[in-house]
Amino acid sequence: MDYKNAIKEITKADEGAMAEAREYCDSLIKPFGALGRLEDTAVRLAGITGQKNNVFRRRAIVVMAADNGVYAEGVAAAPQAFSRLQAINMTRGICGVSVFANNAGADVVVVDIGLMDAAGTDAVLDRNVKRGTDNMAVGPAMSREETEAAIETGFETASGLFNGGYDILGTGEMGIGNTTSTSACAIALLGLEPELAVGRGAGLTDEALANKVEVVKKALTVNKPDKNDPIDILSKVGGLDIAGLVGCYIAAAYHRKPVLIDGAISSIAALIAARLCPAAKDFMIATHRSTEPSYDAAMNELGLIPFLEMEMRLGEGSGCALAFPIIDAACVMMNDMGTFADISFDDSVLVDIREEEES
Amino acid sequence: MDYKNAIKEITKADEGAMAEAREYCDSLIKPFGALGRLEDTAVRLAGITGQKNNVFRRRAIVVMAADNGVYAEGVAAAPQAFSRLQAINMTRGICGVSVFANNAGADVVVVDIGLMDAAGTDAVLDRNVKRGTDNMAVGPAMSREETEAAIETGFETASGLFNGGYDILGTGEMGIGNTTSTSACAIALLGLEPELAVGRGAGLTDEALANKVEVVKKALTVNKPDKNDPIDILSKVGGLDIAGLVGCYIAAAYHRKPVLIDGAISSIAALIAARLCPAAKDFMIATHRSTEPSYDAAMNELGLIPFLEMEMRLGEGSGCALAFPIIDAACVMMNDMGTFADISFDDSVLVDIREEEES
Repeated sequence: MDYKNAIKEITKADEGAMAEAREYCDSLIKPFGALGRLEDTAVRLAGITGQKNNVFRRRAIVVMAADNGVYAEGVAAAPQAFSRLQAINMTRGICGVSVFANNAGADVVVVDIGLMDAAGTDAVLDRNVKRGTDNMAVGPAMSREETEAAIETGFETASGLFNGGYDILGTGEMGIGNTTSTSACAIALLGLEPELAVGRGAGLTDEALANKVEVVKKALTVNKPDKNDPIDILSKVGGLDIAGLVGCYIAAAYHRKPVLIDGAISSIAALIAARLCPAAKDFMIATHRSTEPSYDAAMNELGLIPFLEMEMRLGEGSGCALAFPIIDAACVMMNDMGTFADISFDDSVLVDIREEEES
Repeated sequence: MDYKNAIKEITKADEGAMAEAREYCDSLIKPFGALGRLEDTAVRLAGITGQKNNVFRRRAIVVMAADNGVYAEGVAAAPQAFSRLQAINMTRGICGVSVFANNAGADVVVVDIGLMDAAGTDAVLDRNVKRGTDNMAVGPAMSREETEAAIETGFETASGLFNGGYDILGTGEMGIGNTTSTSACAIALLGLEPELAVGRGAGLTDEALANKVEVVKKALTVNKPDKNDPIDILSKVGGLDIAGLVGCYIAAAYHRKPVLIDGAISSIAALIAARLCPAAKDFMIATHRSTEPSYDAAMNELGLIPFLEMEMRLGEGSGCALAFPIIDAACVMMNDMGTFADISFDDSVLVDIREEEES
């Protein structure tokens, strides 16, 4: 099953299971709706799996690592070698995503989907499609074929994890320069003004930010991506990491498993997945609000709201790791809370409870 | 040591430890400030304990349970017997706070500080100060002496937990009618307009909300609390649960341990604690944004921002339970992430890493 055929088979969330979950939420010993977005999340999870009650024990964060040719235009604060170095460091347990994932009982699966140089360690999965994108400021970042191969790679990687027993995936990326490709995709997809859509990434000065805006404008002018063709946008001004994540979101919908969106970069990948397959939206869950300006616009179209306001801009899937315990809370609410049928207001039952406790 | 003498000894957070923690954050392998509010939280925790590195293994949520005489005015949607019944249910593991605390490895300590009827089970700590407040719509809710006794009870309860080995406390409450007393306190403390400060609590109709506004206005007119005297406000239009929580916040500052604020009711208790002891603010951490309108005003004065946007309005300390994993994440960031000194950009070190991984 490749991703294109999978898209044809993907259907929306299970409305019957969602209705059953909502009704059950209303029976729990709390005022109607008092658990707010935890209730919404439990309903969403029911729609995803088709079951009112859920537990997501085996969890991983898939990190797509890739380099970006647009680095040559001076759009990033960090050295380009950092993409590969951090991909390796993630597997050594010392990066942000590593320690947060460990804290949440999640594995980290790092995938070289487009690094310029091989990681040189089996700890990073070698699924390289292309050794970094070409510089989008002078021509297309990738060919259409390379783009589709990267989506397929993401689809196969995530499918392999689901088939191997993972219940839920988080998504992250590592790639110096990838907020530049993300901004360009966001402008092409959402019609945002470049001055609003281009952010400081991992930390640019005012001067560097102005340069980044000009580079993004140039990439869009040079490549003229078709706003109605997400693959065209992704190939011309996107990246291999973004394409890989698109495949992950499609895989989650195909396997009917929840998938968590991290920050700005993964939110644009999620948006592209939803443009290719609108039903895939139902399987996505937002985690933390990115400070990159395109994030809110992407969430608006996806109909998602993040739980966490952390002012984080690390990427790596770090926000997904922080959100696993919220997913767990939504599950234990459904699995462990009592219902009004379990208790009663009349005095005889109060006495019963008291006697039971005292015995 | 009683709470009044404790206040005299409380000093602000440790600025040296905070500076050390901030500097260490900047050495971690991530862009400066990229972990946003996790970094701020790690710095805050360092200021609280005086140590750069922290682990908070033993954690509890203290739930102050009390009844409110203003219930007679028809301000609540739930039956009054629910306060006691839910206090008991919390100890049986079936309430929201119970399942979320269990999920986060936290104990729940339920305290009868002011229930109308004894819980009748040893599982609820009997620290009853008064069998429910009097109806504030016709006179003061409590005497000044009762109010101070309830603060002292909260202080002693939390101090006992810290002395017994707990590293961190969450705070919650259970008391039908307590958003009414909270709104009255918020208006008196913050000068808010009643129409803005009074919310729907656990779920009121438009008509019931209008009645609640009138009841709050009447309570303030009848009692004329002195806006410059937090104890006067608390005694005249507050509640025993709020007073108990005030004591918990003071105890956390005295023991130099972090204490988490839940929603609207605990935020007003935290504000009163801060008015009595400004340095106590440094030991508080906000968790989730309450939908009650007074919450933001209280947070503004406390200088705190919640992490979570859950649209929850359950109380019980449920939001604190959801925030423990975020505190843990701030700790593992400091304890387990690598620093730039651990890695290097030069090629020889990259080769070293590769060889190490391959071996």
